[in-house]
Amino acid sequence: MMPIDVSARAAATRDRLAESGAGTLIVTDLTNLRWLTGFTGSNGFGIVLPDELVLVTDGRYGDQAERQLAAAHADGGRTRVLVGRTGGQVLDLVAETVSHVASVGFESAHVSHQQFVDFGERFRPTLVPTLGVIERGRRTKDAAEIERMAQACAIADSALAEVARSIRPGRTEAEIRNALEIRMRELGASGPSYETIVATGPTNAPLPHHRPTPTEVQDGHTVIIDVGALYEGYHSDMTRTFLVGTPTALQQEVYDVVLAAQTAGVAAVRPGITTAELDAVCRNIITSAGFGEWFIHGTGHGVGLLIHEDPFVNSAGRDELQVGDVVTVEPGVYREDFGGVRVEDLVLVTSTGCRVLTSSPKDVPCLPSAPTT
Amino acid sequence: MMPIDVSARAAATRDRLAESGAGTLIVTDLTNLRWLTGFTGSNGFGIVLPDELVLVTDGRYGDQAERQLAAAHADGGRTRVLVGRTGGQVLDLVAETVSHVASVGFESAHVSHQQFVDFGERFRPTLVPTLGVIERGRRTKDAAEIERMAQACAIADSALAEVARSIRPGRTEAEIRNALEIRMRELGASGPSYETIVATGPTNAPLPHHRPTPTEVQDGHTVIIDVGALYEGYHSDMTRTFLVGTPTALQQEVYDVVLAAQTAGVAAVRPGITTAELDAVCRNIITSAGFGEWFIHGTGHGVGLLIHEDPFVNSAGRDELQVGDVVTVEPGVYREDFGGVRVEDLVLVTSTGCRVLTSSPKDVPCLPSAPTT
Repeated sequence: MMPIDVSARAAATRDRLAESGAGTLIVTDLTNLRWLTGFTGSNGFGIVLPDELVLVTDGRYGDQAERQLAAAHADGGRTRVLVGRTGGQVLDLVAETVSHVASVGFESAHVSHQQFVDFGERFRPTLVPTLGVIERGRRTKDAAEIERMAQACAIADSALAEVARSIRPGRTEAEIRNALEIRMRELGASGPSYETIVATGPTNAPLPHHRPTPTEVQDGHTVIIDVGALYEGYHSDMTRTFLVGTPTALQQEVYDVVLAAQTAGVAAVRPGITTAELDAVCRNIITSAGFGEWFIHGTGHGVGLLIHEDPFVNSAGRDELQVGDVVTVEPGVYREDFGGVRVEDLVLVTSTGCRVLTSSPKDVPCLPSAPTT
Repeated sequence: MMPIDVSARAAATRDRLAESGAGTLIVTDLTNLRWLTGFTGSNGFGIVLPDELVLVTDGRYGDQAERQLAAAHADGGRTRVLVGRTGGQVLDLVAETVSHVASVGFESAHVSHQQFVDFGERFRPTLVPTLGVIERGRRTKDAAEIERMAQACAIADSALAEVARSIRPGRTEAEIRNALEIRMRELGASGPSYETIVATGPTNAPLPHHRPTPTEVQDGHTVIIDVGALYEGYHSDMTRTFLVGTPTALQQEVYDVVLAAQTAGVAAVRPGITTAELDAVCRNIITSAGFGEWFIHGTGHGVGLLIHEDPFVNSAGRDELQVGDVVTVEPGVYREDFGGVRVEDLVLVTSTGCRVLTSSPKDVPCLPSAPTT
């Protein structure tokens, strides 16, 4: 697998930062810090100075930070790692590092009100709130990132293919989740991408973010499985819905409508479409079929180092999709009289449309209705 | 298992809130929201009004919120759930709910600077920053919470006992982690409590928060295993260090010193001791033995709905331990010439001292040095 090389990211960040009016940025969000530097510790501040990238962390992570920044070629090697023993010392080192600049940007979405007050007391420069400086860079996945996300998708596809064969009445949601998560690990995932959702029947399947319980799969149930793998820090995300036994006319109708909406959504993904337009492609099909009221969430979201990140695809979205975005397309319909149906793929926006990264089949959702063990 | 009953928590929160000068609190932190209401969704605001508890969430979680608040007896039943379709609608509902009060407290440590600015534009009442109003309540675990944490500890103990038997030269860190996490799931955990740490040898073991790699355990290595289970939302945390083959004199010395420090720390836990005093009990033993420079982190931290929460046990700590706190005691020494050694238990502070919740043996750390397969 291609190594992650972050060498150009600090320079690109400086360019975007210039638009905000600050020449220096304190990076507090750990996901943004990882993207920028390669550092994966649980405590640290990045400081993007005009001519160097400084990382301040505590004693647990000093050696690790040196190694990770070097391995990822952070800022082409123009880096320094500073280590404080306590949280207060770490902040003092950050204050010292920015003491010679006039103003310093901070991440308004990631600095708490309390931290903001603390920064104001400790730091000499004027604090300038910034939004999305790093996130705008994170949206566009490079080849090494795409390789990891495709691998995460392939792992989830394989695990689902194997585990789906064993789903039958009597198996519990929790058992199915365990089997999926164990199999993903065995296939090389460092873990699930998020808490795997297995939701069956009229009570659980209508909950889009249901957590698996000892509820048993039963004849006549819909079974929603929303599963992804985490691979070298990158997430995948996919949902398939299964029908147990012979579907009712209503279940079949809802399944067909959701699948049609999802297929149309994937077909509509291309650079330049707004996220609201993409949401409308899916939503209009579901609404026209009379189920609009039960499509109770947005159509999708970006995925990368986080399972939910920019761009968010919903009716209020104003972002335009661009080449290198990786987003989900996941319409769903949820009602207690037929359970829930959701179908979701993860797609990479390309210059000509999109490449679908998940590949589990969507057309054969019926599972055996009687125990075969 | 005893059900989680949160009925008294809203009233206790109102009492603590009164000290901050605000009569109403907006709860934004999802862990605090769960503790207060029983709600486990990924989006929601709680509003603690003088006479009622309102939860505002989005369409994915409306039904779930109704059920969870009822099941946990949130605020003794004086609750309302409001559902917005978009993020903007959710905030509008929060604004409406607090429109009749003069001032409203917000969680300064959990509201981002951006949210704070947004709240200021949307909300009519004066915003009053508060710190730790809910966290102070969360520190003290009740019987139902302790039962879950003890169960999480028991699961990790069992998994480690089984997996430790299979550790020998040639097994990789990642394999050991996978075996532990799979076994914890099979034993009833909903997952690992945190990313399981398996760190072996002179390069990896000195990193306190090392992530498992394909590095193989070798003769002469120390192997640090830091493993916990998540059980119904509650975490456990434990570390044991193994020595492969016959320990060197230095390895044995460091192990003995760390174990002595950890044992003394556990023995010192009682209501009224400050976290700095507890840290000093462990640190003084390690420093006296000449290894103080290599004990590069604090002695411990609180555990509960989060793996790291109040109270933090380190040299700067001013908190006094109190009955119902659950904290780790985990001194360690890390140096490339002998690897790393850490020993950690999770303990519940009781009126007479503490109850140790983790029970894996600490006195037989030597593993076979030759492959036996």
